[in-house]
Amino acid sequence: MRVMVIGGDGYCGWPTALRLSRRGHDICIVDNLSRRRIGRDLGIESLVPIATLSDRITAWSEIGGAPIKQYEIDIAENAEALADLVTQFRPEAVIHFGEQRSVPYSMMDPSAGLFTVRNNMMGTINLLEALVRTKTDAHVIHLGSIGVYGYETLGYEIPEGYQRVRNVDANGNLGPEQETLHPFNPLSKYHLTKALDHLGLAYYAEQHGIRATDLCQGAVWGAETPETRRDPRLANRFDYDPIYGTVVNRFALQAALDKPISVYGTGEQTRAIIHMDDVLDCVEGALAAPPERGDRVRVVNQIAECVSINALASLFAELSGVEIMHLPTPRSEPDENELIANNQSVLEFGVEPTLVSRENATDLIEFARRFADFADETQLYPVTQSPDLVPAS
Amino acid sequence: MRVMVIGGDGYCGWPTALRLSRRGHDICIVDNLSRRRIGRDLGIESLVPIATLSDRITAWSEIGGAPIKQYEIDIAENAEALADLVTQFRPEAVIHFGEQRSVPYSMMDPSAGLFTVRNNMMGTINLLEALVRTKTDAHVIHLGSIGVYGYETLGYEIPEGYQRVRNVDANGNLGPEQETLHPFNPLSKYHLTKALDHLGLAYYAEQHGIRATDLCQGAVWGAETPETRRDPRLANRFDYDPIYGTVVNRFALQAALDKPISVYGTGEQTRAIIHMDDVLDCVEGALAAPPERGDRVRVVNQIAECVSINALASLFAELSGVEIMHLPTPRSEPDENELIANNQSVLEFGVEPTLVSRENATDLIEFARRFADFADETQLYPVTQSPDLVPAS
Repeated sequence: MRVMVIGGDGYCGWPTALRLSRRGHDICIVDNLSRRRIGRDLGIESLVPIATLSDRITAWSEIGGAPIKQYEIDIAENAEALADLVTQFRPEAVIHFGEQRSVPYSMMDPSAGLFTVRNNMMGTINLLEALVRTKTDAHVIHLGSIGVYGYETLGYEIPEGYQRVRNVDANGNLGPEQETLHPFNPLSKYHLTKALDHLGLAYYAEQHGIRATDLCQGAVWGAETPETRRDPRLANRFDYDPIYGTVVNRFALQAALDKPISVYGTGEQTRAIIHMDDVLDCVEGALAAPPERGDRVRVVNQIAECVSINALASLFAELSGVEIMHLPTPRSEPDENELIANNQSVLEFGVEPTLVSRENATDLIEFARRFADFADETQLYPVTQSPDLVPAS
Repeated sequence: MRVMVIGGDGYCGWPTALRLSRRGHDICIVDNLSRRRIGRDLGIESLVPIATLSDRITAWSEIGGAPIKQYEIDIAENAEALADLVTQFRPEAVIHFGEQRSVPYSMMDPSAGLFTVRNNMMGTINLLEALVRTKTDAHVIHLGSIGVYGYETLGYEIPEGYQRVRNVDANGNLGPEQETLHPFNPLSKYHLTKALDHLGLAYYAEQHGIRATDLCQGAVWGAETPETRRDPRLANRFDYDPIYGTVVNRFALQAALDKPISVYGTGEQTRAIIHMDDVLDCVEGALAAPPERGDRVRVVNQIAECVSINALASLFAELSGVEIMHLPTPRSEPDENELIANNQSVLEFGVEPTLVSRENATDLIEFARRFADFADETQLYPVTQSPDLVPAS
């Protein structure tokens, strides 16, 4: 299958491109390299040194992988170039990872926030429009976020996108049962963009027959995949800094360096997480089972487990013998919450979730230890609060 | 009160600016003049000749009106200039009409569609962000659309933004009653932007304490207001072309010219409409009753009545003795629908809705007849279908 991987140079995008290439798909990577630029601007680097995208692709060919095409296009700003490439490549599926993915970055300052909104929202719309105007019937697999519903305790299992409800009229009478989109409650600009994206996908699915899947993902953890392990130039990025590091990977490096595990606030937050291996399996599952033309957007809660931050912190602290340190939360989120989400689609894809077991956590600490010399200890903990937040009085 | 009117050169914006100036508010108009540019590009003009924005403002001063400030800023593209102006003017309220308002234009071709999304969505986000970063506690009154819920027959009265529902779980058990945003179902890119805007307003209200009102407006009709009538240079635009002409105004000019009244499709569509006088009263009402800081977005169904297109057409045909002509619908909408919407807030504002009565319709035809010599008959009826629509198979 001809598969365009937008954001194919990123943490999820690169291992996805390799996996799908290995499966025999014809891969075209589109990336604006903004993740690398932001890293340079902020002075933060992946723990694991990563090769340039060109060198990565060359390495993949040298070890016998199929050629991967590479295009540096900013799809949010250059709709024409994207449409031209769609015409030329004729993708049968587009996997859209091409979004600014950091919650803290999206809240860091106004320009980072507006970049996030413009990059994510306009990129998605330009992609959908490019498919319509070039009459390309490609399945769009978009990386959404399970966080679009907010982090309040809802008191019920988050359904996969749609909920069954009955209206209550002014007199308290119940209307007939109907299925509607579960309402959004984004708590960051990042999550706002994922909600906006969903409305865009829904519109193009309904009005233009675009086949779309929204993978509402939890926080991803993990380092290598069978493909990235095959050559140092194929290595995937591993972020641990307060802006791009996801919780499990950060804890693993802190443990590897014998530094305190840093918990924001009480640690009584529950978060949905998923291992990189499961992400790839889900993407493959979604690719193999596209919606029909005319269907509404298929929503997948792409999560392996819901865990409390304190439980994760305790595990990594225990395995490494370090302390747990509570820091003021830099995020605008409830101090504690419960979270239950339906992940039936993940199970239907045949994924056997990889959990943060003692064994897996130990392996991850071990992995991080191999790269300990590359760690920048000034990046282990946040130093500033989100400056642009004006609390409601 | 210091009131910034974004889009203050437009069909609703200009009479609003004059009304609020007359009421003693200090008015600052921000406009990118894109409506005039689009008119020139498409070769379509207002029936009523309109002065430049500068000449309009000069005329207002000359007849004794207070000075109105004028800034040509593209708020979607120039967030910095907008933030600078907010710092300088310190608005206590911002009335945001600065959006591309034509459904057909938004569906005309990809570049018009993308312009609409970028202009409307990024303009709204840039405005909200400018208020946050400059710590300006201004009430944002945004012009939304009652059409964001689609034009299917819903079978119940559209509430003002929020609905009371009870969840139904997998076993058919009803959950507790909760209030959620009524789900969107936009059928055009224009309506998509209004749904996206709403999510942006909701986010900034919840996360940053922005006080916001979303006026979900029906199609506006009418020509003059007491203020625009005072000098020919104060005249408001009157659009009748297939791109920007709204239904009642188009019918009035067709009647005035003794040309057939053009109905799209069966005419069994029901639409929510409102007269310009009522729009101004509602804006004044919203301005006088802002939400509290910390409140969710206040949603107003800004409509005077819900009418069937056939009923409107019959009235104008009867009053002028012309035929009714049915044309293929250029829009992607159901052929017929029923629509009932709650407009309690409009009544709470003390507005006595101006209806399309025989008398009001006669007056409007009479008004259009005075400008008949300016009419471009090639613009009375649509010539093309929306070209970028790919129906789902």
